[in-house]
Amino acid sequence: MPDSSPLPDRISRLKEAIAGVVGARHLVTDPADLAPHLADQRGLYTGRTPFLVRPGSSAEVAEVVRLCAEARVPVVPQGGNTGLCGGATPDQSGAELLLCLGRLNRIRALDADNFTITVEAGCILSDVQRAAAEADRLFPLSLGAEGSCQIGGNLATNAGGVQVLRYGNARDLTLGLEVVLPDGQRWDGLRGLRKDNTGYDLKHLFIGAEGSLGVITAAVLKLYARPREVVTALLALPDPAAAVQVLGRARRATGEAVTSFELMPRIGLEMAVTHVEGCTDPLAQAHPWYALIELYGGQEQGQLGQALEAMLAEAFEAGLVSDAAIAQNAQQAAAFWRLREGLVEAQKHEGGSIKHDVSVPVSKVPDFIAAAAAEAQRRLPGIRPVPFGHVGDGNIHFNLSQPPGMDRQAFLALWGEMSTAVHDIVAGFDGSFSAEHGVGRLKVEEAVRLKPAVEIEMMRRVKRAFDPHGLMNPGKVVTPEA
Amino acid sequence: MPDSSPLPDRISRLKEAIAGVVGARHLVTDPADLAPHLADQRGLYTGRTPFLVRPGSSAEVAEVVRLCAEARVPVVPQGGNTGLCGGATPDQSGAELLLCLGRLNRIRALDADNFTITVEAGCILSDVQRAAAEADRLFPLSLGAEGSCQIGGNLATNAGGVQVLRYGNARDLTLGLEVVLPDGQRWDGLRGLRKDNTGYDLKHLFIGAEGSLGVITAAVLKLYARPREVVTALLALPDPAAAVQVLGRARRATGEAVTSFELMPRIGLEMAVTHVEGCTDPLAQAHPWYALIELYGGQEQGQLGQALEAMLAEAFEAGLVSDAAIAQNAQQAAAFWRLREGLVEAQKHEGGSIKHDVSVPVSKVPDFIAAAAAEAQRRLPGIRPVPFGHVGDGNIHFNLSQPPGMDRQAFLALWGEMSTAVHDIVAGFDGSFSAEHGVGRLKVEEAVRLKPAVEIEMMRRVKRAFDPHGLMNPGKVVTPEA
Repeated sequence: MPDSSPLPDRISRLKEAIAGVVGARHLVTDPADLAPHLADQRGLYTGRTPFLVRPGSSAEVAEVVRLCAEARVPVVPQGGNTGLCGGATPDQSGAELLLCLGRLNRIRALDADNFTITVEAGCILSDVQRAAAEADRLFPLSLGAEGSCQIGGNLATNAGGVQVLRYGNARDLTLGLEVVLPDGQRWDGLRGLRKDNTGYDLKHLFIGAEGSLGVITAAVLKLYARPREVVTALLALPDPAAAVQVLGRARRATGEAVTSFELMPRIGLEMAVTHVEGCTDPLAQAHPWYALIELYGGQEQGQLGQALEAMLAEAFEAGLVSDAAIAQNAQQAAAFWRLREGLVEAQKHEGGSIKHDVSVPVSKVPDFIAAAAAEAQRRLPGIRPVPFGHVGDGNIHFNLSQPPGMDRQAFLALWGEMSTAVHDIVAGFDGSFSAEHGVGRLKVEEAVRLKPAVEIEMMRRVKRAFDPHGLMNPGKVVTPEA
Repeated sequence: MPDSSPLPDRISRLKEAIAGVVGARHLVTDPADLAPHLADQRGLYTGRTPFLVRPGSSAEVAEVVRLCAEARVPVVPQGGNTGLCGGATPDQSGAELLLCLGRLNRIRALDADNFTITVEAGCILSDVQRAAAEADRLFPLSLGAEGSCQIGGNLATNAGGVQVLRYGNARDLTLGLEVVLPDGQRWDGLRGLRKDNTGYDLKHLFIGAEGSLGVITAAVLKLYARPREVVTALLALPDPAAAVQVLGRARRATGEAVTSFELMPRIGLEMAVTHVEGCTDPLAQAHPWYALIELYGGQEQGQLGQALEAMLAEAFEAGLVSDAAIAQNAQQAAAFWRLREGLVEAQKHEGGSIKHDVSVPVSKVPDFIAAAAAEAQRRLPGIRPVPFGHVGDGNIHFNLSQPPGMDRQAFLALWGEMSTAVHDIVAGFDGSFSAEHGVGRLKVEEAVRLKPAVEIEMMRRVKRAFDPHGLMNPGKVVTPEA
């Protein structure tokens, strides 16, 4: 029977009961200790919570969630708190309990012959990568926050990153899950199978649901052979259309060995060179566009570099590539990647930036960039589009730097209007208004505005079927009908 | 308002209304024309239907399903009718309408630069493969029935086949879906995006649901670069444990270029050579086990063959490979594949066969085969296990040929008992009782017996959320609680 006494009484009793489950020292109430958990990465949201709980096992997570369900107290799961859409921040009510998974940080098993690793939700992504490498295997999920994000959060948000082109999103790397449902039942779906057609594939509901259908506590992840050869090159290109053609040729010429293909405009490279330590202009001349390409191969002195060179020679003849530098060693490869990462960092030094994480079909990237840049410049002359990112996945981080000299706050006040315009253009190209960052709290209304009504209706049906009382991460991803 | 008049009246009015939608000539009632649609591929089930309807577009499918929902008449979707678990056969009630998708057979679009193809549900799989090849692309889904199965059925059953190791199951090849829901609403989820994190990934609910949540009418599928080099080899192995080790070494040595890795026991190869035209013993001596390995590469005269040879030389030194033949041309490669396919055909000439489509973690394949073979032989001395299949996916077709001379029917009468025993062993190795063939009608009870109770409960919640009146392919995959 649900407890229907006043909220403060319920929370007080709940706290006592949860302390009995996890131990009082794993409850956090000190404001200084809570603060980093109550604001999101970008500073868009700040919330409140009666207390934060750190269970130490999936059994404890299940018991905590069961107690919360009984008390009808909502739960907000949180991993490394590196999300960009406010999906892990409680609201301002002070009634939402914060559930942190960081103590569930064991690697439960690594089966090299099955090419799988079984990890708990609180494992740091880079620790998972390292454990795989130590067993001569590759866990290919790789993204900026990998040193602090937790794998449970990566799965809850279906993280993407720089190797999706070859290895897929977090979803595609997952074979099995352990999940605590909103009523506290625990589902052991930790299967390490490549083929399992025994009913609805429920793991795909929880992956990308941002904790709104249950709490992921562990997962079986796919591993791959660790590459013996890594080839990294920086290409100069006349335009994004050439990038799309070169990508297709590279996939073909290397037998699908391309792991990353990152587009950068000249303006972004200049920002990196200007503002970020260790970034230098890599080629003799300036070019309007660049692509960073990386390939993984199986042989120490393989033909991969030669295959890439032969493809580039043909692309040069065809006018698709203007210049190129193939990294001769790991340091040069790192320098190319520093430009790509530096471009993100550098934008902070150029004033306000209105950001979009969008995707379109790869074939439509050039037209999308042209149309969205033109529209932004029409709305605000002097605005500086810095479109960059994972063109191999059609995923463009369409960032708009403010006109030099403009007031930063006045510029950022245009965020809503600019975003609506950019997302409308994305929709016109059959694209997505959130390619890899998720919906969280930031894009709940945008989802309702842009997705087919029947799709929102189906999401609501699923939410009701799994969480009839609306207690799991309320207000995120999908909200009940108004 | 649902129509609550007697069933014959409702069906009669429904027929008239549907004829108005699709045209009377696309309704089938002649018993001779109906017969091939009323029995399943294996002859396990025969059903009845008031009539069969062949809509010509997804709009017509939607209108037909809406009319059925209003009349509360159940619908059984059917593609190429090549399934092995009775998932596309109506029951004996005579009340279930048969909905055939064969007229929805257009390839709507092929976007070579986006590496995608958009197809309607009724397209034959081999036609999709051919359209991709004509655009210099690869659609890698490949399986025995590809000349007659329809892509809609492949998606509804999450088909597997012989290239899952590298390219994944049908699910992994799907970017977007168009679906008609049980109430007749049409969902346009035909997105061709590699990254799209805008809420629950609903396409994964419909893929593998065998038509029990809605009717898939079209899909956007992933394409890959067409290989310029195909290397095929037949390896002789001492035991399945060696197969697992050789697979891992091959993945590593070729940079994940392995597309197929198929295990065959000597007894299966002998059956093929004995019974199937064109099958000959490929190596000088007999060996207890064989593996067919195939690799795809990007260069016409690439190093893939050399990389494989170098790996095999090392594996030979390590005692993992006893002999090997690398195909020198397409004819030799085809001859190796003929053995693999012939092995399936040949079992029909050896009397009754009790079949299992199971999977375990790849690392556990050797112990599973040993344990299951021993248990079968303990239960029926003289029984001949013929375990073969996609060891790269841990998917073993664990078939049991009858003892020579035993009465066929007496042997087949042991099916239930043998299956229960084999599936129990599979469960002990954390495996699946249906790796690629699905649940259909055949394995509904086995799902309830072997899956976690909470997983069946979640499946029922999903079913109720999408199909509250139980009208979409009733009795398949998951049934309402007793």
